[in-house]
Amino acid sequence: MQTPWDHRYAERTKRMKSSAIRELLKLTEQPDVISFAGGLPSPDVFPVKEIEAACVKVLREQGAQALQYGSTEGYLPLREMITRHTIRYNLPVTSDNILITSGSQQALDLLGKILLNHGDRVVVESPTYMGALQAWNAYGAEYVSVRCDENGMITDELEEALRTGPKFIYILPNFQNPTGSTLATERRMKLVELADKYGVPIIEDDPYGQLRFEGEHLPSVVKLDGILHGDGDACYRGNVIYLSTFSKILSPGLRLAWVIAPPEVIRKLALAKQGADLHTATFNQVVAYEVGHGGFIDQHVKTICSVYKERRDVMLDALDEFMPEGVNWSHPKGGLFLWATLPEKISTETMFQKAVDQKVAYVPGGSFHPNGGGDNTMRLNFSYACPERIIEGISRLGMVIRQELNI
Amino acid sequence: MQTPWDHRYAERTKRMKSSAIRELLKLTEQPDVISFAGGLPSPDVFPVKEIEAACVKVLREQGAQALQYGSTEGYLPLREMITRHTIRYNLPVTSDNILITSGSQQALDLLGKILLNHGDRVVVESPTYMGALQAWNAYGAEYVSVRCDENGMITDELEEALRTGPKFIYILPNFQNPTGSTLATERRMKLVELADKYGVPIIEDDPYGQLRFEGEHLPSVVKLDGILHGDGDACYRGNVIYLSTFSKILSPGLRLAWVIAPPEVIRKLALAKQGADLHTATFNQVVAYEVGHGGFIDQHVKTICSVYKERRDVMLDALDEFMPEGVNWSHPKGGLFLWATLPEKISTETMFQKAVDQKVAYVPGGSFHPNGGGDNTMRLNFSYACPERIIEGISRLGMVIRQELNI
Repeated sequence: MQTPWDHRYAERTKRMKSSAIRELLKLTEQPDVISFAGGLPSPDVFPVKEIEAACVKVLREQGAQALQYGSTEGYLPLREMITRHTIRYNLPVTSDNILITSGSQQALDLLGKILLNHGDRVVVESPTYMGALQAWNAYGAEYVSVRCDENGMITDELEEALRTGPKFIYILPNFQNPTGSTLATERRMKLVELADKYGVPIIEDDPYGQLRFEGEHLPSVVKLDGILHGDGDACYRGNVIYLSTFSKILSPGLRLAWVIAPPEVIRKLALAKQGADLHTATFNQVVAYEVGHGGFIDQHVKTICSVYKERRDVMLDALDEFMPEGVNWSHPKGGLFLWATLPEKISTETMFQKAVDQKVAYVPGGSFHPNGGGDNTMRLNFSYACPERIIEGISRLGMVIRQELNI
Repeated sequence: MQTPWDHRYAERTKRMKSSAIRELLKLTEQPDVISFAGGLPSPDVFPVKEIEAACVKVLREQGAQALQYGSTEGYLPLREMITRHTIRYNLPVTSDNILITSGSQQALDLLGKILLNHGDRVVVESPTYMGALQAWNAYGAEYVSVRCDENGMITDELEEALRTGPKFIYILPNFQNPTGSTLATERRMKLVELADKYGVPIIEDDPYGQLRFEGEHLPSVVKLDGILHGDGDACYRGNVIYLSTFSKILSPGLRLAWVIAPPEVIRKLALAKQGADLHTATFNQVVAYEVGHGGFIDQHVKTICSVYKERRDVMLDALDEFMPEGVNWSHPKGGLFLWATLPEKISTETMFQKAVDQKVAYVPGGSFHPNGGGDNTMRLNFSYACPERIIEGISRLGMVIRQELNI
């Protein structure tokens, strides 16, 4: 149907492409496909009963408030709960440092809106989270990518990227999406030092940090920045904007996340958010506060970690069993994803349809690379499928790869 | 605190101003202020019990789905419910014409994102909804305003505005925010004709249309467009994008609204939405479907209308009683607002602080005028305060105005 809108789209729409993941997910929605493609938490660990109890309590005791319009910055008790959680990690912030967003995706969009002019450069890991690219493409961002290995961004190559005069550095230090890798502590320190040397601030995106199955938590970049450049005491310097979310520790269907930033940046973000959606759903915020404020989330994270650790181990064992020689994969210590690298002659994008024909799915790695590369890589999610389906799925995938290699 | 973000804000932030309403609301949050400033629905008509029952049912029967990530376009049964509701008004659409948004404010933002290049003109009513201006300022919109009277936009003055080559016309035909006026049927027809003649499409924003207290519903602009320019049968031509919301008929704290547009526009909007917040909270969508699909909302709208009609009547009577000569006001047949015009020498912005000192609040009308004017006008909300407080508040306001007039 021809409409008068057809020739009226803004210039920026030319840069707005569908996320490959989102399109692939549609292909893999048939229940007989074992999908490692999504970034879905396991519904087995949704705290359904706790959320039900919270819904009932909130509606009975404060329905008039919970169903009403709310403040753009977010429900104050929830911001204070996040403040307490943050201070526990020895990062002294106040609720003036916190903005509640409609998922971390909105935080990325709002940051793009207040920071990016057309043509501005952003330093990213390669590969990186494609949702960030999608958000910032609309504002005309260009990407300067820094390679990664099993210890995250190769910070020895960061300085060159910083010389291009970027607006900020975007990094996912813990159990990165898509690779599952974690930025080593000495690299975190190097990152903070170089950012300071070049006067380039950092956006630290940490949706998975709490989901560590083994080893010790590493200090966040935002905290290291305070330690290395502060006056010795713990402090929030403001050079790092930190993002996290309730999506992986409570439920993604509530669309609740938060930003930690200097108060002036929070004010700018809130202005942008006013124009974007007025505020995040009041009801969801009050319910999340009700579920979380007594300490339930700490307990619940342990449950999630034990389920996901088992699934990761099952996937690692299955990869050992079913993958032909020449296929390598990461051994993440937490999070939702691992990263497989196939022999160079295989294009995981070309192979994708064959995999779906064999009723197994993944995300081709190329789509996570802003400036190309990674054609022989793939992201595998281990949080969503149950152990039996993980084994069956990896077995199918091994077969597809063997066929591709003619072995 | 100086931070490296201070000099890094995007150019567009210079145009991003806080909504006067949102800032004023903060001033009027003390419980002893009787505020006619907000656009808040009455919490007395939130269907708290129905929402509680729906939350419990949804979590017990489909918690795994309702708490999970969902599709960007929205929960299909909810889109189908909206489709049925729309077809009932003789506007034949399918779920491919529907996008669920996180409140209508997000619809405005996404429309700006996909349609507006910097410097594009938009035809608006003067006064108009300031949230639309706030959303579109970020994309560099310029406004060509057309004056309004008690029958809405003065369409005799529209043609001149259309000659400036605008991207689209933005109009709130029913119980407009801020004036409460309704666009007369003959003007709706004139609007549709002129839009067609100049090839300029229309965005029809209809958050209040169902809240009619008296008289017959007028045909929507989108429907008239189909009747006047279609092949005689009811049709959706696609020239008009139609927005509506659950905020005024269920609860604003759920942040649920919808867009009706041609499928290609919906696809572009969905792309923009993917980057903006992935999707609207699944849980809220499933709960709204559960509350609404059996026909509850029709019943509930009658309840809302009877409560709001009483409050409107109380406010009209109080205005009659307490306002000095020279003050005029609109007599809206529905919605949440009425509009008062004071003698020209009074600036409602200057008077605002005095009003708050007397514990009564309104929104100065100037902020609704994109190109100036309206300094002696104000928006009064009659849905939120209970009848006793409406009478007391209007009495206080009458006193403030008398003082301002030295009578």
